[in-house]
Amino acid sequence: MPPPNFRATVTEHFGHLQDQISEAISKVEGRPFREDLWERPGGGGGRTRILEGGTVIERGGVNLSEVHGELPKELAATMPGSGTSFYATGLSLVLHPQNPFAPTVHANFRYLEKGDTGWFGGGADLTPSYLFDEDARHFHRTLKEACDRHDPGYYPDFKKQCDQYFLIQHRGERRGVGGLFFDYLRGDLNKLFAFVQDVSAAFLPSYLPVLTRRLDAPFEPKHRRWQLLRRGRYVEFNLVYDRGTVFGLKTSGRIESILMSLPANASWEYAAEPAPGSEEARLLDVLRTPRDWA
Amino acid sequence: MPPPNFRATVTEHFGHLQDQISEAISKVEGRPFREDLWERPGGGGGRTRILEGGTVIERGGVNLSEVHGELPKELAATMPGSGTSFYATGLSLVLHPQNPFAPTVHANFRYLEKGDTGWFGGGADLTPSYLFDEDARHFHRTLKEACDRHDPGYYPDFKKQCDQYFLIQHRGERRGVGGLFFDYLRGDLNKLFAFVQDVSAAFLPSYLPVLTRRLDAPFEPKHRRWQLLRRGRYVEFNLVYDRGTVFGLKTSGRIESILMSLPANASWEYAAEPAPGSEEARLLDVLRTPRDWA
Repeated sequence: MPPPNFRATVTEHFGHLQDQISEAISKVEGRPFREDLWERPGGGGGRTRILEGGTVIERGGVNLSEVHGELPKELAATMPGSGTSFYATGLSLVLHPQNPFAPTVHANFRYLEKGDTGWFGGGADLTPSYLFDEDARHFHRTLKEACDRHDPGYYPDFKKQCDQYFLIQHRGERRGVGGLFFDYLRGDLNKLFAFVQDVSAAFLPSYLPVLTRRLDAPFEPKHRRWQLLRRGRYVEFNLVYDRGTVFGLKTSGRIESILMSLPANASWEYAAEPAPGSEEARLLDVLRTPRDWA
Repeated sequence: MPPPNFRATVTEHFGHLQDQISEAISKVEGRPFREDLWERPGGGGGRTRILEGGTVIERGGVNLSEVHGELPKELAATMPGSGTSFYATGLSLVLHPQNPFAPTVHANFRYLEKGDTGWFGGGADLTPSYLFDEDARHFHRTLKEACDRHDPGYYPDFKKQCDQYFLIQHRGERRGVGGLFFDYLRGDLNKLFAFVQDVSAAFLPSYLPVLTRRLDAPFEPKHRRWQLLRRGRYVEFNLVYDRGTVFGLKTSGRIESILMSLPANASWEYAAEPAPGSEEARLLDVLRTPRDWA
């Protein structure tokens, strides 16, 4: 059984985290997020924060939601815990910067309950259009340090799961250079919550230095073109494979909050394979064969 | 049992159709399609024709394929006929014009065999960003005339199936203003082939006059913006719901030929609901509540 007041404690943490992250990004952008409060007809609601058309962030969102109700039976059967009643609280964010050299980032931290079973899930992953080794290293190492403080087995496990999860199967390439992915963390919930607090607090220090050192980099139309093609791949992953997105779309979730993950602009071109030896080809190599970054 | 030489006869027809359609579109565009011949490792191959970055067609393809082999058991179980051996020949096309007032069009005509059972499937549908009633009427009426020559029940049935199939469930709106959708047409294959020849020959007269009267229409940035948002919806439908696309992606089809259906450019914006009474809102009304056009 989850500890008393656990839901409220976890949600309060996610709420603080949303404030912290959206304030930090607002400061870089120089303007606030648009905020929408919404209620879920079946129970609960959320606080969506969106930034569009910025000079730093082309499109992004930092969303809090706390929902509860009944799951469809077939779906409930795929999860731990008894019955079909569920509760879910979490923070979900995606940031697509304007500059082609500044990577897109996604993070999600969530706590779920079904019946008398509670568990944590989440992760964070980086999606560059151009690969700077120091960015990927910094991102992975910062997250690894937070993991290592709790369990030395976490980082290698969650890094591997991330590379497996974010595979665009039909392209044979990952969406990005990975990070962490974990789910169904059950057991001592207080201990697990301490880990989730720590790793979610590591998100900003993992990403913000990367964003700030790339956001003003000069670029040419050919870099923008490649960024838009990579964003097409991002769309392919999210709409074809991402469990949360597909589940949300098919079960009447709040569409605008779910599809906040999609970029403002994306492109497709026939057989757009980059020239051997180019920076674009170097990225593809790493997306096809994930590397150790920590 | 299919008639002798039936596969070759049908494929020859689809090949002529590909020539006819790509030549007609090339003529409007003022330059030829790029052609790629490809082979399928499991058996068969195709002739992909692509047009990108044109002044009339922003991106499009007219693809012929004739493939055969073995289906995965679970998939085979969902289809008529015995066993898992299959044969499929067909023409598939999508054209996304540059001009926001010129509608996107999709058509597909195919013949399949599994075991000793053969059937036809296909259809054609129109996806405007801006709705011109006369365009929708012309498209539907031209296709209806071809249907009516074979069975007065065809058009009402196939029109309804089209409105049902091209539903973007999570948006509560159709991809476009519909047309025809049919599948599993079995029985007298010679008779059915006569229908498919007729209706596929009606494709060019249904679309070409619409394209040519819109391709030079003056437009403003706001029209382009709305066109790109509607293309985002097109991507949502194709990647989340379109059976052929999802099946192709998940069973290692030829990715570049399958995703030829996606537009060159697509956009997403948060909660982009058009102003009441606007032309954009009028389109949405029709996508939410399909109308009779014939």
